[in-house]
Amino acid sequence: MTPALRKATEKDLPAIHGLVKQLADFEKMPNAVTTTLEDYSKALISKEIQIDVATVNDHIVGMTLYYSTFSTWKGKMMYLEDFYVEPSHRGYGIGSALFDLFLETAKSQECVLAKWQVLDWNTRAVDFYINKGATIEKDWWNGKISLTSLALS
Amino acid sequence: MTPALRKATEKDLPAIHGLVKQLADFEKMPNAVTTTLEDYSKALISKEIQIDVATVNDHIVGMTLYYSTFSTWKGKMMYLEDFYVEPSHRGYGIGSALFDLFLETAKSQECVLAKWQVLDWNTRAVDFYINKGATIEKDWWNGKISLTSLALS
Repeated sequence: MTPALRKATEKDLPAIHGLVKQLADFEKMPNAVTTTLEDYSKALISKEIQIDVATVNDHIVGMTLYYSTFSTWKGKMMYLEDFYVEPSHRGYGIGSALFDLFLETAKSQECVLAKWQVLDWNTRAVDFYINKGATIEKDWWNGKISLTSLALS
Repeated sequence: MTPALRKATEKDLPAIHGLVKQLADFEKMPNAVTTTLEDYSKALISKEIQIDVATVNDHIVGMTLYYSTFSTWKGKMMYLEDFYVEPSHRGYGIGSALFDLFLETAKSQECVLAKWQVLDWNTRAVDFYINKGATIEKDWWNGKISLTSLALS
């Protein structure tokens, strides 16, 4: 199984949106995805996000979705928002190739740091990242507030 | 003590950079800040980041630094990268006013979610966020790889 890696285009977005929903299922939050295809389309066209896909026989089986942000400590940083390979296509190095491409793209765009998050129970993913030379930080918690119901003063 | 809140301008950046270094000291990583004033300047001018400052007698005593990103689950999201009030000016509601302004700015810019991180031992900050109605997630770890020494294939 030899995957081909390439940049995603707008016509790939339905498949990518489907993979994000699969990932949310896997992360035990099946109802968490409330975005629409139009949200993805706007973000991709405006270059707010970048997406790479892995295909086998022209079928999308994996993807990385990322964007650059600013670390006040380090400078330009690439943040890996989503990374997923379909279960039926795991074990063939597709995730590894996608992740390496993500790092290379980040470096070529002058980022000094790549960052992402992983669930604490996802030992397979944690091992994968450690194998890639990553540092795993366990002492930060996430804070979040939904703004949809926030009343402005 | 009545603080004034306003958007930061380029001439505020030396003070802001100083506060970021104070925050890194507080977070027990005093040597972690390797950015320069020029990095901040570029990011502010390009509108990659937004900064609000709190001043008392025209002296900057606190700040929030944030940028919008894309949540594949929720859509447009505002990420609070740094948030700091000088120890000598705590207890007067300055942090609360800065945080509320951050949320209001995020909402006014059509973000549906505000997100940030907090260190697990920083109980004062965790209590502050819970009091603001935040959800604190404890089950995500951060992964990171420095790209400065990455060899491209």
